[in-house]
Amino acid sequence: MFGLLSKKPVDKLIEVLGREKVSTSLVERKLYSYDATPIPIERALPSAVVFPTSQEDVQKLVKVCYEEEIPIFPRGAGSGLTGGAVPTLEKGVVVSFERMNRFQIDVDNATAVVEPGVITYEFQQEVERFGLFYPPDPSSFKYSTIGGNIAENAGGPRCLKYGVTREYVLGLTAVIKEGEVIKTGNPVIKDVAGYDITKLFVGSEGTLGLITSAVLKLIPKPKARGTALILFKNLEDVGRVVTRIMTSGIFPSALEFMDRDAIRAVEEFKPVGLPKDVSALLLVEVDGSPQSVKEDIKAVEELARAMGLEVKVAEDEESAEKLWTARKSLGPALGNLRTGKINEDVVVPRVYLSEAIRDYRKVAEKYGLLMAIFGHIGDGNLHVNLLYDKKNKEEEERAERAVDEIFEITLRYNGSITGEHGVGLTKRKFLEYQFGPVGMEILRGIKKVFDPKNLFNPGKVIAL
Amino acid sequence: MFGLLSKKPVDKLIEVLGREKVSTSLVERKLYSYDATPIPIERALPSAVVFPTSQEDVQKLVKVCYEEEIPIFPRGAGSGLTGGAVPTLEKGVVVSFERMNRFQIDVDNATAVVEPGVITYEFQQEVERFGLFYPPDPSSFKYSTIGGNIAENAGGPRCLKYGVTREYVLGLTAVIKEGEVIKTGNPVIKDVAGYDITKLFVGSEGTLGLITSAVLKLIPKPKARGTALILFKNLEDVGRVVTRIMTSGIFPSALEFMDRDAIRAVEEFKPVGLPKDVSALLLVEVDGSPQSVKEDIKAVEELARAMGLEVKVAEDEESAEKLWTARKSLGPALGNLRTGKINEDVVVPRVYLSEAIRDYRKVAEKYGLLMAIFGHIGDGNLHVNLLYDKKNKEEEERAERAVDEIFEITLRYNGSITGEHGVGLTKRKFLEYQFGPVGMEILRGIKKVFDPKNLFNPGKVIAL
Repeated sequence: MFGLLSKKPVDKLIEVLGREKVSTSLVERKLYSYDATPIPIERALPSAVVFPTSQEDVQKLVKVCYEEEIPIFPRGAGSGLTGGAVPTLEKGVVVSFERMNRFQIDVDNATAVVEPGVITYEFQQEVERFGLFYPPDPSSFKYSTIGGNIAENAGGPRCLKYGVTREYVLGLTAVIKEGEVIKTGNPVIKDVAGYDITKLFVGSEGTLGLITSAVLKLIPKPKARGTALILFKNLEDVGRVVTRIMTSGIFPSALEFMDRDAIRAVEEFKPVGLPKDVSALLLVEVDGSPQSVKEDIKAVEELARAMGLEVKVAEDEESAEKLWTARKSLGPALGNLRTGKINEDVVVPRVYLSEAIRDYRKVAEKYGLLMAIFGHIGDGNLHVNLLYDKKNKEEEERAERAVDEIFEITLRYNGSITGEHGVGLTKRKFLEYQFGPVGMEILRGIKKVFDPKNLFNPGKVIAL
Repeated sequence: MFGLLSKKPVDKLIEVLGREKVSTSLVERKLYSYDATPIPIERALPSAVVFPTSQEDVQKLVKVCYEEEIPIFPRGAGSGLTGGAVPTLEKGVVVSFERMNRFQIDVDNATAVVEPGVITYEFQQEVERFGLFYPPDPSSFKYSTIGGNIAENAGGPRCLKYGVTREYVLGLTAVIKEGEVIKTGNPVIKDVAGYDITKLFVGSEGTLGLITSAVLKLIPKPKARGTALILFKNLEDVGRVVTRIMTSGIFPSALEFMDRDAIRAVEEFKPVGLPKDVSALLLVEVDGSPQSVKEDIKAVEELARAMGLEVKVAEDEESAEKLWTARKSLGPALGNLRTGKINEDVVVPRVYLSEAIRDYRKVAEKYGLLMAIFGHIGDGNLHVNLLYDKKNKEEEERAERAVDEIFEITLRYNGSITGEHGVGLTKRKFLEYQFGPVGMEILRGIKKVFDPKNLFNPGKVIAL
């Protein structure tokens, strides 16, 4: 022992948590410095990876980090696409929640208490055994964690009808500041006492504190589902159909859009028989009682036919599954076309969709890039994919420049730079465009209330 | 002219807004110093009532108020029950939004832009003409305003399925600090850029700034509705039925509960033929396609019968309407039993409902008061009504003491002191119990970020 003064900060962490919860191995430090962000970003080797197993552990580690001014980089499954989980300072530690993965379902109350490291899909499977439903379905749901989903306010196709992760978080326990615990909300749906700190945490990307548990809302599981496929010759008709559906008393559980190049990518990758000569297609999913599903699908079919459009109805579970597999295989399918892919998740008000898509396409032309667009058209959330050859540095740079223009178009149409992926590192500069100086000042002010030393995921979302 | 120095603050307001927008008449100042709070509260005669007609007006008035340190008390329709709209400082001005009542519906985008003074019901009627739906239904909806609803995060019976006001606010424009404008969110459902300032404003009761417009989400209007009535001999069975319904694939649009004394009050006030010999009843409403409504009502009927309970199904629109009228007339019906009524809107997790109700009843017994309980049982939100004789001061005091114990019971069961009415003035001291010292420090910190001089609705929700 050389006394506390000469001790390295990481040794203090080992002292309070025990060696089995603090890894300083080079391999692990390297492994935990990556997430799924597809473009080159700022990155540093952390000084350690910490694996808390309880709220007490989290409190202890935050206390040490606050004393020693160690930056904290929280991490779920590392499936994020904007660098949210990536450490950027060498003094920093990655806090991985993989060992905090317990959950408890309260069927009578239709709520659950979950730790952040719970895998979303595993939780959903268990919930559905009781006739209940936890809707959030980011495409990473089979491996991403509830904690990560909350930090990013994750969404997916079902969010049109069921809302994003935020709508299902009733309460949170989090460790903030120098290790203080804040408990927000309750296992109840309605609670209007005080400011909504729960929802402020959702989507804050780990910059306000470390979530140690969440109370989630569960809803009744729909009994049946049905899927129809509408084919388009003209992009302009897509918006018209969406409006007709949404004003006819049908509330689709998903409205997914694929453009020509997205369709081609799927058919080249894993053919399911989608027609390659259309300019776009729409997958319409409805859910509810078996009878209402039949009625709704019939109504969708009739209104689309009345507009002169071709419609195909999935006659059984299997053919519906096939269509959804096509939709879900878009990611790998596009990866099959080119080695590099930038997938932006912009959102534009539905009314401007065809105009925005036309403008995005012009950007692709201008930079000579392959572009495929698909997404959750019911809520205006489009995945604009720029494809390039990873080995061609010049093409990669062109793709990055094109992204800037895509964001500019999005903001011009009153949209948002991110509907699902978050800001992280990669969209920080565009956040300023969206919020303006007054808004940014407020965001910084709030950050300081929770994290006066700027140690929780510093540099993410906003630069202080 | 005697120069700026000798001018009274109110004169400055008149100078920038014009005389027709600033009233200093004693009658108006008196009128605008009240809201619907049923118990005696702190109250002051404001120095003026201001009627802005545009965002520019609001900016101008906030600038003057910040320069002159005039407290600002924003007001919708004044239908609040916790003193949120009541001025408490004589130097203060009431800002009434009644002249800012324009709105614009974008059918294709399923959104609307509304000013704060729009009457909720009028807006809903217009929305439904287009096959769309704005669900929030506080019982004041026929006269309360969207601005007030947002400030209080208003809810009602439909919130079980459709969520509270918060879920429908996509974006806001607000005037904060010294008159700066903040624009949050966009006319899109998904937006995960930066912290969720929109939802932070919802339910903040006018303490963070003045909302000048909101972007609201609209959803498809359900085509049909159906209602069933379940009667109970034992209170304990209520929770069991609710769980059975919610885990059988049915998502009721409302699950309303009335206890014995609430039923009696209705029958004495305006009889609709409710059985007076039961200990409780449950109104179950479902909505959706006509066929699914039939199926769901039948399923509810069967599962209740299988549990040995008596069920009545409303055979037509008219008999359903009759049942809902009974539910909605509970307020006046209770007023008919006694001149004084304290209506608390506590929330307890559904699993503890029968225990909590039993404990609430004990409080009524202890203080020798008449108590009637009804509410939105699906989300655990109960209206616990204490009835007393207004002329009997001693009884009134007993009722106020009983309220304290009701809140204590609620918090013991992990509940919330308010599900709909907000904190305002009347529940301030209980907020501390619910949030604890760390939470209160965070609330205060956030308040200061938006309102460094504590001039926006000072003293409401939290005391600085």
